[in-house]
Amino acid sequence: MPAYATNMRLKFPILALTLEIITIILFSVFVVYDDGEKHDGHGDHGNSNSSHKEAKDPMTLYPMFQDVHVMIFIGFGFLMTFLKRYGFSSVGLNLLLAAFALQWGLLMQGLWHLDADGKIRVDVFKMINADFSTATVLISFGAVLGKTSPVQLLIMTILEITIFGINEHLVANVLGANDVGASMIIHAFGAYFGLAVARVLYRPALRDHENNGSVYHSDLFAMIGTVFLWMFWPSFNSAIANPGADQLMAVTNTYFSLAACVLSAYAISSLVEHKGKLDMVHIQNATLAGGVAVGTCADMNIGPFGAMLIGFVAGIISTLGFKFLSPILASHLGIQDTCGVHNLHGMPGILGGIAGIVAVAMEVLHMKKNYDNNFASFPVRPLRSAAMQACALASSLGFALVGGAITGLIMKLPFWGQPPDQNCFDDSIYWEVPEEEEAEESLAHGEHSTNKAEA
Amino acid sequence: MPAYATNMRLKFPILALTLEIITIILFSVFVVYDDGEKHDGHGDHGNSNSSHKEAKDPMTLYPMFQDVHVMIFIGFGFLMTFLKRYGFSSVGLNLLLAAFALQWGLLMQGLWHLDADGKIRVDVFKMINADFSTATVLISFGAVLGKTSPVQLLIMTILEITIFGINEHLVANVLGANDVGASMIIHAFGAYFGLAVARVLYRPALRDHENNGSVYHSDLFAMIGTVFLWMFWPSFNSAIANPGADQLMAVTNTYFSLAACVLSAYAISSLVEHKGKLDMVHIQNATLAGGVAVGTCADMNIGPFGAMLIGFVAGIISTLGFKFLSPILASHLGIQDTCGVHNLHGMPGILGGIAGIVAVAMEVLHMKKNYDNNFASFPVRPLRSAAMQACALASSLGFALVGGAITGLIMKLPFWGQPPDQNCFDDSIYWEVPEEEEAEESLAHGEHSTNKAEA
Amino acid sequence: MPAYATNMRLKFPILALTLEIITIILFSVFVVYDDGEKHDGHGDHGNSNSSHKEAKDPMTLYPMFQDVHVMIFIGFGFLMTFLKRYGFSSVGLNLLLAAFALQWGLLMQGLWHLDADGKIRVDVFKMINADFSTATVLISFGAVLGKTSPVQLLIMTILEITIFGINEHLVANVLGANDVGASMIIHAFGAYFGLAVARVLYRPALRDHENNGSVYHSDLFAMIGTVFLWMFWPSFNSAIANPGADQLMAVTNTYFSLAACVLSAYAISSLVEHKGKLDMVHIQNATLAGGVAVGTCADMNIGPFGAMLIGFVAGIISTLGFKFLSPILASHLGIQDTCGVHNLHGMPGILGGIAGIVAVAMEVLHMKKNYDNNFASFPVRPLRSAAMQACALASSLGFALVGGAITGLIMKLPFWGQPPDQNCFDDSIYWEVPEEEEAEESLAHGEHSTNKAEA
Repeated sequence: MPAYATNMRLKFPILALTLEIITIILFSVFVVYDDGEKHDGHGDHGNSNSSHKEAKDPMTLYPMFQDVHVMIFIGFGFLMTFLKRYGFSSVGLNLLLAAFALQWGLLMQGLWHLDADGKIRVDVFKMINADFSTATVLISFGAVLGKTSPVQLLIMTILEITIFGINEHLVANVLGANDVGASMIIHAFGAYFGLAVARVLYRPALRDHENNGSVYHSDLFAMIGTVFLWMFWPSFNSAIANPGADQLMAVTNTYFSLAACVLSAYAISSLVEHKGKLDMVHIQNATLAGGVAVGTCADMNIGPFGAMLIGFVAGIISTLGFKFLSPILASHLGIQDTCGVHNLHGMPGILGGIAGIVAVAMEVLHMKKNYDNNFASFPVRPLRSAAMQACALASSLGFALVGGAITGLIMKLPFWGQPPDQNCFDDSIYWEVPEEEEAEESLAHGEHSTNKAEA
Repeated sequence: MPAYATNMRLKFPILALTLEIITIILFSVFVVYDDGEKHDGHGDHGNSNSSHKEAKDPMTLYPMFQDVHVMIFIGFGFLMTFLKRYGFSSVGLNLLLAAFALQWGLLMQGLWHLDADGKIRVDVFKMINADFSTATVLISFGAVLGKTSPVQLLIMTILEITIFGINEHLVANVLGANDVGASMIIHAFGAYFGLAVARVLYRPALRDHENNGSVYHSDLFAMIGTVFLWMFWPSFNSAIANPGADQLMAVTNTYFSLAACVLSAYAISSLVEHKGKLDMVHIQNATLAGGVAVGTCADMNIGPFGAMLIGFVAGIISTLGFKFLSPILASHLGIQDTCGVHNLHGMPGILGGIAGIVAVAMEVLHMKKNYDNNFASFPVRPLRSAAMQACALASSLGFALVGGAITGLIMKLPFWGQPPDQNCFDDSIYWEVPEEEEAEESLAHGEHSTNKAEA
Repeated sequence: MPAYATNMRLKFPILALTLEIITIILFSVFVVYDDGEKHDGHGDHGNSNSSHKEAKDPMTLYPMFQDVHVMIFIGFGFLMTFLKRYGFSSVGLNLLLAAFALQWGLLMQGLWHLDADGKIRVDVFKMINADFSTATVLISFGAVLGKTSPVQLLIMTILEITIFGINEHLVANVLGANDVGASMIIHAFGAYFGLAVARVLYRPALRDHENNGSVYHSDLFAMIGTVFLWMFWPSFNSAIANPGADQLMAVTNTYFSLAACVLSAYAISSLVEHKGKLDMVHIQNATLAGGVAVGTCADMNIGPFGAMLIGFVAGIISTLGFKFLSPILASHLGIQDTCGVHNLHGMPGILGGIAGIVAVAMEVLHMKKNYDNNFASFPVRPLRSAAMQACALASSLGFALVGGAITGLIMKLPFWGQPPDQNCFDDSIYWEVPEEEEAEESLAHGEHSTNKAEA
């Protein structure tokens, strides 16, 4: 690839400005304020979340929205700063992609739920959902981190959010499946979408890349992301739950699942590492798997200990995945997963989907015991619900893999400014990097900085 | 200037302790708890915010207060840590100034709104306003960052907050202008106040100072500030809006303005930089200009796309200002603006003021269309309101420039311990700095640390 | 001690997994969701906080819970990252200990307040209390930071939380003392518990350890912790106050106490340091002493200026403690207090307890003036209350010192993998540390890294 191809001077500004202008035009046509009155459209039928519209104070969900917002911008952004020379891109491109994704997500989700007058009314609930759609892109970003240009990433954002909107509509409105914490439609979807893209963009020369690693302080920056994600995950999983007891249940389950997950992730990290040492990669990521895995059944009556069991297992699976599975995926399947999203979002997301199927199916037992009003339909309804949950998981994986593969092919076109191999995982190809620091590092590395092919 | 003048041992402790003791005495005279009962004083007439007193739960605004609090202490504090050797001062003096400013601000604002019994009743609303007055000082701090002593900064804090209190009273209570997100009374005021101070303190030797730059990790610390400011700006602009739909509108407008601003700031940064690279200075600052510029009309019915247009333009103006205007101000006008507050708060603040004038004037059209109850006065009221908005902008700029110039002259007196030129932008003149780090840096710089003139 | 003893490969995973499995089993027996209905048990008698159960929306306290959560995981975690080579352990072990402590704390506190059906119903209020019990462990962790293995710390967690539960029950339910912000039962308790442990684990060779210090960027990471603790401390002190005016009063008092404390801490730091420079150790810690000291009487009518006086004095005491008392404790009493918890939590905690005694006793004067309904019992009730406050302080100190000493003896058993002297304050004994960084540091230190005795 000719070196000048990575010059973003024209292609990036043109794409970014064009996208934003198109978005503003679409907003002027479709998006209005929520005035608190009813404008029920056909799009809301079957939407289990529509009860939120009844809430009187439109700001009730705002603190939870801000928790989710912190997860998106600080959590995801800093989690990816672990790479030694890619911090600007991690937190900076995270901000760029998320800022565009939340606008695009609001449109792509809103178009499926237009009000009777053809408008999308923005309220805090819709902002939370826009942040959710953003999360899928940031998860996929983790899989291709360091190997893609800002232009490629903006293209991925447009396509992924659009496909997410379709799958989300299918799962929530057509299948009527439960996925309150979005184990399937965000985490599994985002992970496998990103892995499919990463597979298409596979580059053998990136194996054991010298910049694909951390330094001491970059690992500490990443912990800022980890801890904010960990703390606010109960808000993520409960933000769109029904207010009151259901929301509290979602908070409680996520809180305990995460706590149990920390213990198992630390234990397994020590068990599999040299001399029983802890590995920062595991700590930064696997401690969060409990939040992912408990997502689908966060608002189901699985009991606090049930949530802890899910988190406990998720921490084990995730840590083992980082240690043993990721190297195999990279060497045998050509899937280079920079942040290990398969271990944090992929497998725990599937685990969450399966837990949801089981939890819904087990309602059979509860119903039998309780002789409730729906006894007439016993056991058809819960089994049908369990089947719908399974369809939702399959749909999410299918859309992710096919959509990701197509998106990867488009991203592979040669004129999007993808970085050459030797400049991967390095901010300096797309960012002005302070010179002093480069001098300091080359000194520290006992060498002169020679691997710049930007000129 | 004799070197010993920078020894803070006596002057700083005496000033800080004296100020705090005076403040405590004033608090014992004027400040009491809010007991939830009415004590309406004459000061509240014409205060559009007094309706907040009706809220039953005194803690309703508390989550928003904490968002603003995070912006003040983490946002401003870490945003300024971008300098390679001035991180202790940035986040540390930010804490010192803000802690004093919120006490002083509560008094200076409260004295204009005393209750009938001559007391200031502290509630969350007043705490938010105290944080707001603090913001003006921290904006001005950005203009003189690295070139002033803690004693000088405390003096600036006292004077600036006092003048802010006068202007705020004039704008809100006498002119009755709207400035819910404070584009004019905080951002433009703080920026031009700081620029006036910086002009008076101009020192030619600081041009191209070797410490006036970043290193890799200092830029990452600064991004913590940027992202927290970006996320919580909707709270800043909506905190004192009328509860309910107005507050939601302020959140919505700010959220979309900021999102659009990110895209335009990134695009222009790439467009104007060498080889299309992104510049961290632009990303850290210009991405926030949308929050500033939408402030005044955040709670006005400008439409989500109107808010996005404002943010889009603000991102462009701010980035261009950093690239082209700041160097001119420094070289031709003698205004050394360390953090570029003119580009982040100054110009976007004026843009916000103008947008407010236009938005208020355009009510004429709305009224005409709607034949509302005020038709009798059409079009006198909206035009009069627009004129009041213009007066508010002029008042804010006038108080800032004159007040800043006078404050600068007082700060220029030779006994406040201003750092000598060669020690500017360097923590070690006012802070104990770990020695290992200095050794590491001198190694990295390939030189011995010789530029210390503190002895 | 044989070097292999620090290999955590078996002992740490076995302990962590066993503890988590036991916890999950206990949760399956005792812990259920809060369904919003009443299940009053005998444990609630005399609990002044039980009025919280009346709140209709179970999520009302959630934003405050998240503030406290941020203090526990970001605040404590990053505050301890000031050490140059111990950041992974500080924030990483903080996460591990806190994740286990909140589960164990919920059980240990809940067992004293079982509902009639023998269950613990988890609500946000109980989660806040679980975070509170966690805080005691993290305070003690600060005293032994860098000198203990993860296994030792887990053991300390189990024992300290159990003892905390007993003392908390005694203070709140038997003595009926007020300690809304927990100056006594968390801060003084946690500090003196940790100091007792540190005394038992005393190692003369650790004096002036080369790794027991900071580098420039580690001090900046620590400021993240400081500032988040500082900002959210009003939530900590008011979270379990009675809703409404009492809660606002607790917020107000803490807010002003902290603000005044910053001024006095900065002033005294400059006064006692070489050439009037500020010391990061003081700024990171003593600025928070106002939050500790105002804890007990945060919801008492001490007046905003009373709160400021408490904070003002706390800032002075704490800074002087760091400067003069800590070296004496280390050299003469064998108490090596890595983070100086005696100065941040110990002395200010006692100050808070004493302030509480005084504030309660001074109700005598108020009652006399007000001729309120309780006049019949005047002045018996307030004096009795003051005595109960004094008993609460004595109980907290007693349990802490005795419990800490016993815990220290157990932790001193030779098979828990305590690090050898030369590997203290160094992540690399328990963590995989990136190699580049070590190379960089050894270069910077002008030496080769030779102090590894792990092999």
